[in-house]
Amino acid sequence: MKAMLHACIISTGTELLLGSTIDSNCNFLSQKLCDLGVRVIARFTVGDNREQISNAFNNALKLADLVICSGGLGPTLDDLTKEIACEVAGCQMELVEEEVKHLQEYFARRKRKMPEANLKQALFPPEAIILKNSKGTAPGMYLKKDGKVLVLLPGPPREMQAIYLQEVEALLERDFCLDDKQSASCTIKVMGPGESQVDEMLMDIINEPRGCSLALLAQDGEVHIKLTAEGENAEHSKQILREISRRIENNMDRYVFGHDEESLSGVVAKLLVNTGKRLAVAESCSGGLLAQMITELPGSSRYFWGSVTSYSNDAKVKLLGVKEETLASYGAVSPETAEEMARGILRKSGCDFSLAITGIAGPDGGTKEKPVGLVYIALAAKEDCIVKEMHFAGAREGIRILSAKTALDMLRRQLQYGGI
Amino acid sequence: MKAMLHACIISTGTELLLGSTIDSNCNFLSQKLCDLGVRVIARFTVGDNREQISNAFNNALKLADLVICSGGLGPTLDDLTKEIACEVAGCQMELVEEEVKHLQEYFARRKRKMPEANLKQALFPPEAIILKNSKGTAPGMYLKKDGKVLVLLPGPPREMQAIYLQEVEALLERDFCLDDKQSASCTIKVMGPGESQVDEMLMDIINEPRGCSLALLAQDGEVHIKLTAEGENAEHSKQILREISRRIENNMDRYVFGHDEESLSGVVAKLLVNTGKRLAVAESCSGGLLAQMITELPGSSRYFWGSVTSYSNDAKVKLLGVKEETLASYGAVSPETAEEMARGILRKSGCDFSLAITGIAGPDGGTKEKPVGLVYIALAAKEDCIVKEMHFAGAREGIRILSAKTALDMLRRQLQYGGI
Repeated sequence: MKAMLHACIISTGTELLLGSTIDSNCNFLSQKLCDLGVRVIARFTVGDNREQISNAFNNALKLADLVICSGGLGPTLDDLTKEIACEVAGCQMELVEEEVKHLQEYFARRKRKMPEANLKQALFPPEAIILKNSKGTAPGMYLKKDGKVLVLLPGPPREMQAIYLQEVEALLERDFCLDDKQSASCTIKVMGPGESQVDEMLMDIINEPRGCSLALLAQDGEVHIKLTAEGENAEHSKQILREISRRIENNMDRYVFGHDEESLSGVVAKLLVNTGKRLAVAESCSGGLLAQMITELPGSSRYFWGSVTSYSNDAKVKLLGVKEETLASYGAVSPETAEEMARGILRKSGCDFSLAITGIAGPDGGTKEKPVGLVYIALAAKEDCIVKEMHFAGAREGIRILSAKTALDMLRRQLQYGGI
Repeated sequence: MKAMLHACIISTGTELLLGSTIDSNCNFLSQKLCDLGVRVIARFTVGDNREQISNAFNNALKLADLVICSGGLGPTLDDLTKEIACEVAGCQMELVEEEVKHLQEYFARRKRKMPEANLKQALFPPEAIILKNSKGTAPGMYLKKDGKVLVLLPGPPREMQAIYLQEVEALLERDFCLDDKQSASCTIKVMGPGESQVDEMLMDIINEPRGCSLALLAQDGEVHIKLTAEGENAEHSKQILREISRRIENNMDRYVFGHDEESLSGVVAKLLVNTGKRLAVAESCSGGLLAQMITELPGSSRYFWGSVTSYSNDAKVKLLGVKEETLASYGAVSPETAEEMARGILRKSGCDFSLAITGIAGPDGGTKEKPVGLVYIALAAKEDCIVKEMHFAGAREGIRILSAKTALDMLRRQLQYGGI
């Protein structure tokens, strides 16, 4: 069995350490490398500082077979990456005439003369492959040395992604036989149980080393079970993956809502479109989140009629027809009100299904009888209506998100299994 | 001048290296430490791997005076951080009875028995300060040893941020005399012009080095102007900051909506509460985002009546009273429809103000006459109604967010200046 390739990702740039810029390059490269079957073992972010950059490259080349670094290829004095990378790799840089010409042409197209400072962007060691940058001035660099590969890419995400996709991926596949991927992976997504509960439910599978690693990722009420199977070859890996997936789906049963890139709202959307059904919703404490989750997807107008965010009791009465007596007797946060909200929007819209949410998101508003986190979720269809009582833990935003997701999941189960 | 404290931030968690989870902890900690005057010199991200975590701690403690690590404090076998950190720091862990009790109580409140696995969350070295976690099971740890400080925090962002703000910041200020800060900083937030336009509007200020650095951060239609003044002492820095702020506010004028931690919805909320006015909204293409931005804030029920997401034409007619003839003559995306939506929800709610949004978020649905990004935003009050026509660039999610924010900003300007 071929050993898995290890990679280390470096981002250089002092602005990244100030915390105001999100480093999307790291995430993009991590995802792409994982897709190629490469294991990212570490990521380093350092400022425009000679010593830090040098340390980062030295550590990375010790730890990994492949080092990809973005940032620091500009023309300013702070741009040190290429110079230091070559120092650490033991290469000498030379001025490449063709690259000087490219730079001059780039500036000429913008009616400017190339500043002297940009000359350093044309310096490269002879043993490196120069990676064309169609979206900026800094070419990247792909260097194979002493059994390792060192890739330098520009910092701006659009430039970095373009060079990676157009030039680097093919070189990596060629040099590491990566298209001959031996591993196989997939993600199984569940909704309902928390991370430790999923851990318990999969204990019998987790405890057996079967050539398949399992990672749990908790994300706003969802738990993603990421499987990576490493067999003797691609076919063997796929076989292991199928077997482990089957056992996991068996254990997790109706909690499973989707796989890989699927989202909960995407799964519900597909079920509605396939059955030609339409949906309307009424929400209170989730304040628009449920509607927003549904409409995030292009084409949602095919199955989504619209929604009401009935934040005040008056809105519940005026927009949904909830009875004043119901609010007076049971309160806004009650199964009775949830049902009337669901039936109200169903009637108004003439849709096949409706969802309603009413609860206490906090941090204020909770009492001993009705604490923060108490949420009623109703699902109505024709004459029927089911109301679920939930007790969510966490802060305001978490309770709002969980309410909206649980509502969507109730509808999913109804559509998939004819019952929640 | 006192030497600047150096810090290294570590994030542990294999899911971070897979590229699907954004590491917001790094950014939060970087910002907070910068605000304290600490220089973050490097950030490391490693998986749930003994060797990698050990390397990371060893390197970090060599490079920096302060090491803050998040992740790996859970109860599962993958949670190795605390054990390895103590190994590297040369400390022995012991079971802390009081923490065992806290854990048992946490599970009892959720009607569960504490799983055995959670016991390790009560292990701590005697020399460490245990940091209370009010939002989860894993307490953090603050350890001073050999002139360095090592802080361990849970991975989930809400838990990590709460412990940092409630416990860690004060300890850092105490141990490193950080409140004796010589620099002064602030952020001025504007809405309307893009980043390069703000750059041009501040050109005269940017080009003069006056002991004050200026960084622009573009965020979903907002531009944050971050100023850091470094004078000869704290008083001098504050003076420089006041002067530069005054000049920037002068140049940016009504585009300025807030400062420092203020959010656009927070500023609008304050204006509504102070004037005792109430708001209702009707949105189409923004699909619930505007309502969600308003209700994100606790206490929004004081000024928010509710909203309608009139995604279909039928919903516009049934919920808002938009006339069928208007839709037939001008279409759903028109200033006429926007006005009727705004007047409709104003009438229904009896509120002082209403906002309405109708447009084409894309990627489909655009035509030559009405392209993707065309959005009409209406603001109504009593008998008056203003409609703004916007042409937003970008992808679907960006257009939705910009629509909602622009609507809020129209209301802000109306409340602040009596006109948009």
